[in-house]
Amino acid sequence: MIAYIEDIATHAGQAVTLRGWLHNRRSSGKIHFLTLRDGTGFIQCVMTTQAVGEEMFKGADHLGQESALIVEGTARADARAPGGYEIDVTGFEVVAESQNYPITPKEHGVDYLMDRRHLWIRSPRQQAVLRVRHEVINAVRDFFNGRGFILADTPIFTPAACEGTTTLFPVQYFDDTTAYLTQSGQLYNEANAMALGRVYSFGPTFRAEKSKTRRHLTEFWMVEPEMAYATLDDVMELAEALVVYVVGRALDRRKQELKTLERDTSKLEQVQAPFPRISYDDAAGILKTKGLPFEWGGDFGAPDETALSEDFDRPMCVHRFPSAIKAFYMKPDPARAELALGVDVLAPEGYGEIIGGGERLADLDLLLQRIKEHNLPQEAFEWYLDLRRYGSVPHAGFGMGIERVVAWICGLEHLREAIPYPRMLYRMYP
Amino acid sequence: MIAYIEDIATHAGQAVTLRGWLHNRRSSGKIHFLTLRDGTGFIQCVMTTQAVGEEMFKGADHLGQESALIVEGTARADARAPGGYEIDVTGFEVVAESQNYPITPKEHGVDYLMDRRHLWIRSPRQQAVLRVRHEVINAVRDFFNGRGFILADTPIFTPAACEGTTTLFPVQYFDDTTAYLTQSGQLYNEANAMALGRVYSFGPTFRAEKSKTRRHLTEFWMVEPEMAYATLDDVMELAEALVVYVVGRALDRRKQELKTLERDTSKLEQVQAPFPRISYDDAAGILKTKGLPFEWGGDFGAPDETALSEDFDRPMCVHRFPSAIKAFYMKPDPARAELALGVDVLAPEGYGEIIGGGERLADLDLLLQRIKEHNLPQEAFEWYLDLRRYGSVPHAGFGMGIERVVAWICGLEHLREAIPYPRMLYRMYP
Repeated sequence: MIAYIEDIATHAGQAVTLRGWLHNRRSSGKIHFLTLRDGTGFIQCVMTTQAVGEEMFKGADHLGQESALIVEGTARADARAPGGYEIDVTGFEVVAESQNYPITPKEHGVDYLMDRRHLWIRSPRQQAVLRVRHEVINAVRDFFNGRGFILADTPIFTPAACEGTTTLFPVQYFDDTTAYLTQSGQLYNEANAMALGRVYSFGPTFRAEKSKTRRHLTEFWMVEPEMAYATLDDVMELAEALVVYVVGRALDRRKQELKTLERDTSKLEQVQAPFPRISYDDAAGILKTKGLPFEWGGDFGAPDETALSEDFDRPMCVHRFPSAIKAFYMKPDPARAELALGVDVLAPEGYGEIIGGGERLADLDLLLQRIKEHNLPQEAFEWYLDLRRYGSVPHAGFGMGIERVVAWICGLEHLREAIPYPRMLYRMYP
Repeated sequence: MIAYIEDIATHAGQAVTLRGWLHNRRSSGKIHFLTLRDGTGFIQCVMTTQAVGEEMFKGADHLGQESALIVEGTARADARAPGGYEIDVTGFEVVAESQNYPITPKEHGVDYLMDRRHLWIRSPRQQAVLRVRHEVINAVRDFFNGRGFILADTPIFTPAACEGTTTLFPVQYFDDTTAYLTQSGQLYNEANAMALGRVYSFGPTFRAEKSKTRRHLTEFWMVEPEMAYATLDDVMELAEALVVYVVGRALDRRKQELKTLERDTSKLEQVQAPFPRISYDDAAGILKTKGLPFEWGGDFGAPDETALSEDFDRPMCVHRFPSAIKAFYMKPDPARAELALGVDVLAPEGYGEIIGGGERLADLDLLLQRIKEHNLPQEAFEWYLDLRRYGSVPHAGFGMGIERVVAWICGLEHLREAIPYPRMLYRMYP
């Protein structure tokens, strides 16, 4: 019976056929220990001359790493085995040999591995990251679907900038029209929320970031919920509930992967509501106290984010930033007009901003003024202004960067491992 | 208590607060009938002078379509109401007035509506389509997640063409590098399947189609599963199971929406396994019999697809196409080398191709030859060739276009209504 390694416990004592690749091989006299991987897991297959005969035994002598193999054998419980089972081999077939596989168990440099990303993802560590990513994305979707949000995809080709014009990727559309790759689904989400109440978009977004940091990709995935009849407080509550749920799902369903990654899960178990909430004013004060060269009015840099979050064992919310450093569509605080009703959620352990959002400007006249102040072309935003002309309501939402959340949960140094094929300043291959 | 219209049955007899927009208003003497929408549904609110007093009653006299309203009242069961309930209004608040809303219940032209897509999506019909789309996407994901597939996102920025070079969108990346927007995640899915066994990608794809047909968008969403150790037959089975599941979910969970769309659901109920499977050879014969000007060796046009599918009450599979009209990575039929082990799934009722896929070429030498024959730059495909160098195994997969499936299930004439913000030859706004 064809079986997958992840289901092997359900085949205890049975004859099974496993189809996969040779991950590792060592021999000890009359026994080969073949570690097979099939994409769902890794398992040790024990082959003896006694069980398979001299000829077949010799056929496994020279097999290189990543040779494609179909193995037949019996699943035997073994408490010492990492997955609790081993295979006693009764036969095998070589589907395709592999010689000189370029990624060996020895250490390789990052550029070398990135050039071979299509092969690197076969390694236990990278597989574990990609499975956690899968879990994070599905947890996010289940969270919103379970709360009555409707998925409404926002366009990739957009006629105008949303998050500033310096980091846009232009595309030649037809007839000399220029399209810009979306930086955020935000503006369209607002239109969708006025139609469907509670919505989310979930897709790739693009920033032509010329900076080469461990926290930036030119192409990254973002989930962006938006709610009609909602305020800044609703956003903070929703963001908190989402992060607690996603981390809980990873802890619950990806134990094995987090173990492979040697992640200290006790740190993730601290991620419980409520998250501390501090104002930007207070955050600026804390940074000053800690001796950082931060001035009120500036945006947080990575060292500032790290300094702010180091006092807490869970994510924190920083709210009410100066309007001047936030997007044009942010609603000003009625109590202090120079502040925007925005919030950033910072992950603990120095992982920085994972969520940014807030309440949107619902007033037509003020929005028109902002568009002028930001030198944005009003014509391109006429449709967006319509949302304030026809039944404008308080509304709010946020964006959460998937790779940043995956990097944090997995404990990765750099975002490049949190996505199958990272795109960066000098990286577009494979 | 704040309530949503979709949950109103759980609040029968209770005082509720609904937050939404005025969809329609008619008055009869001392009664206003206000149809409120809140994104989750539509409900009639009955307001009498007796219940709210003369002054408040007068305040609802002049309200325009899409005015934002918060309504308080009691949920009362009424068998004649479309949703089974009405609201007896006890009070209301105007959040924002709306005057001269541009989309009235009268007929508008398509261009007029497309220019106002951000408002058009508020209409009952467009809301219903978007909710079916949401259901289709979630059904697809649940299907694959439930079968052990891992979601692995493929890149949008790619260094080379996958589905031919004539319909590419180039983007200027950094330092004069040109990136191309992905046409399919196919090639990367193959690498991912060699790492993770069974995978799927689900994201936007791009084709610079200069044709202006009802079946084409320049930006559309596609799900693409890929399986290691799989063949053409596995693909046909998986595709069949997926389509049956997705249609079943829509029928099960989106009854109300399909009713709004006046969809003949008896046709969708016929979508059961097994789907008829015919060879390209036989299909060519059928077209000849039907008097169509089709020659063996050509690809099916829309009229051909319609003619083929009209004999069946469910989707059909056409397999083993001439290699010459299929992509370079298709495996040739061992029995007849001029045929490719590919399959198209055609929806019934003239909706055409919804799925295309097949078995991939696993042999290195043959693949090298194909890349040369297709004049593709071998250097850009070196990573893809590695998959044949290191443990090549039989593998297969397919792509399913989401908008085509949504259009079919909803019974839409044109793909443009199957996505929130369609992008076409002359359409990139809003």
